[in-house]
Amino acid sequence: MKPEDPDYARRLDEADPLAAFRERFVIDEPGLIYLDGNSLGRLPRAAVTRAEELVRREWGGRLIRGWNEGWWDLAERLGGKIAGLIGAESDEVLVADSTSVNLYKLAVAALRARGNRAKVVTDDLNFPSDIHILEAALTPARPDGRLEVVPSPDRLTMPTEALAAAIDGDTALVSLAHTAFKSAFVYDLAAITRIAHEAGALTLWDLSHSVGAMPLDLGGAGVDLAVGCCYKYLNGGPGAPAFLYVRRDLQEELANPITGWFGSRDPFRFGLEYQPAEGIRRFLTGTPPVLSLAMIEPGVDLILEAGLDRIREKSVRQTEYLIELYDALLAPLGYGLNSPREPERRGSHVSISHPEGYRINQALIHRMGVIPDFRLPDSIRLGVCPLYTTYDELRRAALALHTVVAGRIHED
Amino acid sequence: MKPEDPDYARRLDEADPLAAFRERFVIDEPGLIYLDGNSLGRLPRAAVTRAEELVRREWGGRLIRGWNEGWWDLAERLGGKIAGLIGAESDEVLVADSTSVNLYKLAVAALRARGNRAKVVTDDLNFPSDIHILEAALTPARPDGRLEVVPSPDRLTMPTEALAAAIDGDTALVSLAHTAFKSAFVYDLAAITRIAHEAGALTLWDLSHSVGAMPLDLGGAGVDLAVGCCYKYLNGGPGAPAFLYVRRDLQEELANPITGWFGSRDPFRFGLEYQPAEGIRRFLTGTPPVLSLAMIEPGVDLILEAGLDRIREKSVRQTEYLIELYDALLAPLGYGLNSPREPERRGSHVSISHPEGYRINQALIHRMGVIPDFRLPDSIRLGVCPLYTTYDELRRAALALHTVVAGRIHED
Repeated sequence: MKPEDPDYARRLDEADPLAAFRERFVIDEPGLIYLDGNSLGRLPRAAVTRAEELVRREWGGRLIRGWNEGWWDLAERLGGKIAGLIGAESDEVLVADSTSVNLYKLAVAALRARGNRAKVVTDDLNFPSDIHILEAALTPARPDGRLEVVPSPDRLTMPTEALAAAIDGDTALVSLAHTAFKSAFVYDLAAITRIAHEAGALTLWDLSHSVGAMPLDLGGAGVDLAVGCCYKYLNGGPGAPAFLYVRRDLQEELANPITGWFGSRDPFRFGLEYQPAEGIRRFLTGTPPVLSLAMIEPGVDLILEAGLDRIREKSVRQTEYLIELYDALLAPLGYGLNSPREPERRGSHVSISHPEGYRINQALIHRMGVIPDFRLPDSIRLGVCPLYTTYDELRRAALALHTVVAGRIHED
Repeated sequence: MKPEDPDYARRLDEADPLAAFRERFVIDEPGLIYLDGNSLGRLPRAAVTRAEELVRREWGGRLIRGWNEGWWDLAERLGGKIAGLIGAESDEVLVADSTSVNLYKLAVAALRARGNRAKVVTDDLNFPSDIHILEAALTPARPDGRLEVVPSPDRLTMPTEALAAAIDGDTALVSLAHTAFKSAFVYDLAAITRIAHEAGALTLWDLSHSVGAMPLDLGGAGVDLAVGCCYKYLNGGPGAPAFLYVRRDLQEELANPITGWFGSRDPFRFGLEYQPAEGIRRFLTGTPPVLSLAMIEPGVDLILEAGLDRIREKSVRQTEYLIELYDALLAPLGYGLNSPREPERRGSHVSISHPEGYRINQALIHRMGVIPDFRLPDSIRLGVCPLYTTYDELRRAALALHTVVAGRIHED
């Protein structure tokens, strides 16, 4: 049977142990093929109820008392749940601010703690604003320091040796995005962390495109610091606050450079001298946006319920299926494959390229009922979210990609 | 007629041109006297509908398309509305992050722009975490700089001359909370801004306890920079993102120290070099928490509809009434008045003190159905929100304060 046969996909869907989770999400347009959950995850049904309760009952009914009835510790409590997704202890993670602000706080803190070293190492597969933030973090910590951006030889993957060559005795921090946002290339977390540690450097991982899509073991790998996004595979809602992780034994050593009142030891003492809170809480800053923060929980709960091993298994099978479809239908039409074929080096999206990528993407959205996303210069990302993506959606998406080019629909 | 007579309050309520606005808020316990709207404002009825629409229709139904259908410019669009409350132009304000993060961004930017000067001036009436942030902002900008915290002679008010004496040719920045969080003392915005400018310093005002409770004229006063909170008098919801203001002619001169992707010129170009967006947008950082952000609008709309002149008029009349009640009922029982008697120097709360303040506050909440808030060491704040606070609530709150001490209820 060919991969584009309806029966082929139907059998995969019928055998899918996670199939029932799709019903746990709001799906208004069942015909719409949504492959952009790696940009903004779908709305869990439970989040609709939670939002009502939160706004109407907690804010409206409990008013300021809400702070003593669950809001005050929410950032840590949700952090504790996310810890379960990344192989961390529950007191090593909290939810706060945006990924950018968290990256800034942790990078400045790390650079100050390694003040005798002048270099930060990253690479050009990293999300550009992470690179901008790392650069910005040097000024307050080590104004004479420098950022080394290791170039990817193929702009899609990064050989461990190339990174290793850049990490030396003057390296304070190695900071990378665990899954590359364009190609979905996945680093060997443990190997690179080990190389950094051997050189005496700290590591700061951006887990935005990994968390919720694959098991992670920060504890086992000895990772020092991490940040990540809650609105992609965690389904936390548009612009949901981000999380940060600081390994327990570093928490007292590192200082939050933005000394807001939620990170202070006793905010209601109103002392003129800043004293950091104990433990992970010192990495909070201002009052958290409670509505957006609380809405993260239903999505995280679904992932905990489904289990990351099963999610990863399906994710690998689905991206593999996309690659089978690519080989059969798309490669012959001039599409290229940006994502690794080795499953252990591939995240939960498949990136394909085409010289007419932008126009193809527009045609998919406006003519074919498929929502992927486009990344300059020529890549179309197809994001797979095992909790709600079906194999048949992938089949139909590949057919749409085929039809657009074969029928020259993008040239209309 | 005595101020504590029910008829006295009833007449004031009957003559209140804003009385009908109370119906525009969710009020679950009509008997509860809520005087803590200066910590967390009540839930506007329109916000309940907005939340449903936002979660169910926009996130659930529109998914990633929501960014092109209103979310992308939301921070600026809401900033434009808040500009109308503070005497700014619509392109001088945006909503982002927390007050602490915004204060950090603007203070660092200001200090870098005035790098030849080493001093920041504030005073000890300022919110402590603002003081901590100002201190934190010196490191990345002027590590050898210093913060001068001018002491209030009575810990309640600040003579303009005392501030003026601290502002000199080495002062880069003067940063104050426009309305002091404890006493409700209000500074002369224009006079202090003028003094700072005469010395060549920039000004950065925290408007958290002023915005929405009184008209402000940042433009008329020539204020350089400001931040403020949206969950107090603006009724934007728990932990609502904060706003920031940068005078138009400073926007190109100042650089956001946290170079997130929402503040960059063309985020989807994904360039490795950071280029700031034009205008106020460069002071954005990461992806904004859309749910919490959008929920600010209904509260701001109510204030625009009621009009700040009418709000201020009622606020002054209500705090004046509280002081009449204080004189009649509370001063004889050993209470003290922390807030200024001159209306033009008083914000929208009245702070009273008592050696047993903490226990009195507990008795008010748990025994008397009154929610004020307590500030160490001995102050009880009674916040007046003209859109929903009635004169009769103030009368009953004062009677409760009287009863607790006269009946020794706080000693139970």
